[in-house]
Amino acid sequence: MKPDTPPISARRIKGFRDLTGGILLARERMIATIRGVYERFGFTPLETPALEYVDSLGKFLPESDTPDAGIFSFRDEDQEWVALRYDLTAPLARYVAMNINELPLPFRRYQAGPVWRVEKPGPGRFREFYQFDFDSVGTGSMLADAEACMIMAQTLEALGVRRGDYVIKVNNRKVLNGVLESLGAGAASGQRMALQVLRCIDKLDRVGFAGVEQLLGTGRKDESGAFIAGVGLSPKSIRTVLDYLGAGAETRTGVLEALGAPVAKSQVGRKGLDELREIDAALLAAGYESDRVRFDSTVVRGLEYYTGPVFEGVLTFNIKDENGQPRQFGSVFGGGRYDDLVKRFLGREVPATGASIGVDRLLAALAHLGEIDAAAGGANTLVTRLDKAMTAEYQRLAAELHAAGLPAELYVGTQGIGKQFQYASRTGKIACVVLGPDELAKGEVSIKDLRLGEELSRDIGEDRKKWLEQQPAQVTIPRDKLLETLQGILRRYPAR
Amino acid sequence: MKPDTPPISARRIKGFRDLTGGILLARERMIATIRGVYERFGFTPLETPALEYVDSLGKFLPESDTPDAGIFSFRDEDQEWVALRYDLTAPLARYVAMNINELPLPFRRYQAGPVWRVEKPGPGRFREFYQFDFDSVGTGSMLADAEACMIMAQTLEALGVRRGDYVIKVNNRKVLNGVLESLGAGAASGQRMALQVLRCIDKLDRVGFAGVEQLLGTGRKDESGAFIAGVGLSPKSIRTVLDYLGAGAETRTGVLEALGAPVAKSQVGRKGLDELREIDAALLAAGYESDRVRFDSTVVRGLEYYTGPVFEGVLTFNIKDENGQPRQFGSVFGGGRYDDLVKRFLGREVPATGASIGVDRLLAALAHLGEIDAAAGGANTLVTRLDKAMTAEYQRLAAELHAAGLPAELYVGTQGIGKQFQYASRTGKIACVVLGPDELAKGEVSIKDLRLGEELSRDIGEDRKKWLEQQPAQVTIPRDKLLETLQGILRRYPAR
Repeated sequence: MKPDTPPISARRIKGFRDLTGGILLARERMIATIRGVYERFGFTPLETPALEYVDSLGKFLPESDTPDAGIFSFRDEDQEWVALRYDLTAPLARYVAMNINELPLPFRRYQAGPVWRVEKPGPGRFREFYQFDFDSVGTGSMLADAEACMIMAQTLEALGVRRGDYVIKVNNRKVLNGVLESLGAGAASGQRMALQVLRCIDKLDRVGFAGVEQLLGTGRKDESGAFIAGVGLSPKSIRTVLDYLGAGAETRTGVLEALGAPVAKSQVGRKGLDELREIDAALLAAGYESDRVRFDSTVVRGLEYYTGPVFEGVLTFNIKDENGQPRQFGSVFGGGRYDDLVKRFLGREVPATGASIGVDRLLAALAHLGEIDAAAGGANTLVTRLDKAMTAEYQRLAAELHAAGLPAELYVGTQGIGKQFQYASRTGKIACVVLGPDELAKGEVSIKDLRLGEELSRDIGEDRKKWLEQQPAQVTIPRDKLLETLQGILRRYPAR
Repeated sequence: MKPDTPPISARRIKGFRDLTGGILLARERMIATIRGVYERFGFTPLETPALEYVDSLGKFLPESDTPDAGIFSFRDEDQEWVALRYDLTAPLARYVAMNINELPLPFRRYQAGPVWRVEKPGPGRFREFYQFDFDSVGTGSMLADAEACMIMAQTLEALGVRRGDYVIKVNNRKVLNGVLESLGAGAASGQRMALQVLRCIDKLDRVGFAGVEQLLGTGRKDESGAFIAGVGLSPKSIRTVLDYLGAGAETRTGVLEALGAPVAKSQVGRKGLDELREIDAALLAAGYESDRVRFDSTVVRGLEYYTGPVFEGVLTFNIKDENGQPRQFGSVFGGGRYDDLVKRFLGREVPATGASIGVDRLLAALAHLGEIDAAAGGANTLVTRLDKAMTAEYQRLAAELHAAGLPAELYVGTQGIGKQFQYASRTGKIACVVLGPDELAKGEVSIKDLRLGEELSRDIGEDRKKWLEQQPAQVTIPRDKLLETLQGILRRYPAR
């Protein structure tokens, strides 16, 4: 680079993040915990590339009907369209299609990693985020779907979410399709109408039952005063949809009963109901009652892609939103059955089911709740360099601590001892090792306790305060007492 | 998706890989080991995005002068050029520039992750590969460079590379620049010549001293018979370069002495030599002799970018290449000092140094050496479903094993028991739990040992063979003995 080039501006692309310290270590732990649950059920790891051919990925984004959504795609040097993966399921389908003859079926894999979407960035909405998926490919058994619900529940509990603070909601697209079929939405022209109805249902959370009723009929004025055209269903058809949506009940058995009427006339609808019955039986056998896994007819989850049961893991406790208002945290886990995804490649159906946890979303929630210390990580001790001419001694001290299994950073900057203490505080160290020529001559060494003053100024209870006040902020000790004295100081304070 | 769409071909982009099982678990372990060493020295984690603005990344690829090299870049929806990161250093420079006022200096971070390059794919050459970097930003002290060499050595040893099977090679770009300066390659026109000379030196491994001599002079015919034009240096200048390159010696002190003459007339060259002396002193103080860290005047490492000491961690043991010929494994770790990288953004120098380990490259070497079992990972036990009507019982069995901390997969496919045993073998299971109506009635359960026959057919030594032959391939036991019996069988075989 030429020395005269004018400085350029350092910018990060919008919707992307730099992550540091505690949040990364927390994600590390979170991923290890999730992996433990997935492996317990016999899933093994797979890692596919970040880039795929666009035609291999297909276009299955849940929001593929809105203009803001999309994928990062471009032409490679052979002029072929490639894209950053937008989820981990489409690459899995490509992998299975390429290896179908070698894979033992059901093929059960997990995969963790970032995915990329061109979304409008906003609070909690990023263009690069971590997912952690598990899938069973090559089985149409509802046992696999029931197992997926159990894994979702066990994963959330393993991550520290208490029973009662989450619920797994289950629906079946076949039941939904049965309802749509009975509206006459079966043929090609009906398919567009079906999509419109699904979109109305998907808005239930925001507009309520009355709003959905308007949207299914003649249309609705939204909060801004804009008029949204309606689907134009007959009053009878609207009644059918609302009956279906209203099939809420405390128990799965109750929902199954309430859904009987709306799908009675549709073969696919009845098949969907049978599938839910099978899932219910498997859940019951494993002791999963409706407090953990619930049937919910309002769950849609993406407009295309899913072909049978769909799942949603929802955190039900409240957090404060960016305006300080409490709101339910919402969905962190999603999935379902997609029997057609591999068919795109092979021409024949390879049934599959699975789910994906939004690792970054859950992490953001924990950070929001203050459960992650942003300064976490790194060594707790700084070996300072009071007299740069004595560097060899300081190196020996650091090596001694390393050999004893104590992470310790040797100060490799160029500033004086005062700045070195500041550096130690700012990087979260607990102790500084200090050594001058006099101490060296006497075979001594000093340890400075950085947290003492900080800790005393906090509200820590009288007993601990009294005890801490008796601790000296700096001690000079014989060199051979360094290890035990330092370990004693480190034990005083929680690691960051 | 329309059911009539003709199947599309499932393809993976060339130069990219799908990774499974053992290799991923081995990488996981490798990354954890490396992280342990980096953290011991006080480095903390950072994660930057996969995508960056092209002008933020700059153009610093080592091979940026060859036509095949490059980065995956494209215009985003705002028509700005963005690219997949090609290393982890350029994003670090961007991060430091954006946060310089808040960061404690030296800022010491590590980062692991994939990087992407448009390279011609080949054996061991991929377009997506993992690196794991550590860097100290904001210190010009040679102690940081010496520490980097120690960290490289400690990392390789922590990964199981024996002392004597690796060497850290160190050079200094200032020394090289001093040599180039004394050839009259200082001003703008000289800079092009300097690059040409560096390229010749970089070819030393392939063409030898005589070849470099020809390339520096009138030119050279390569193996294919093609003529490569020479740089056209005078015989005296060529002598200077060769003297410099020949400064090999067994000890670092020897190299320092041999380098005295070639750089005597250059101020920057003498400064470079002083820096190497400081590094030598720090290494000696920490007990690193020339068997572990060597000075090597032939190391170039990238044509631009580095401004002082450069490092290379080389594995010296032989592996077989794709033609079965033995060759030295070569470089897995690389780095050096880059005092100008942040300057691009801030207009002022922020000295920095660090190194990067090629995780995938090292992993490939281990896989090559047969030290990675491709089938590793997952549960060791399959709970079969002999009679699908008894699924609730099978679920209970699996839950029982999970509760005892034993990973166990419940078969969720739809095939019969014979195929289930095959599935168990193909997925690397050790044992199958089998339960039929009769056993259920008697309160019993069966365990099938899948590895027994497989193990007996191997060369395992007489004692173990005799012992194994006495073990039954299937046992039927009271239900309450399931756990201990299964654990006994699992203990017979190494996990995969």
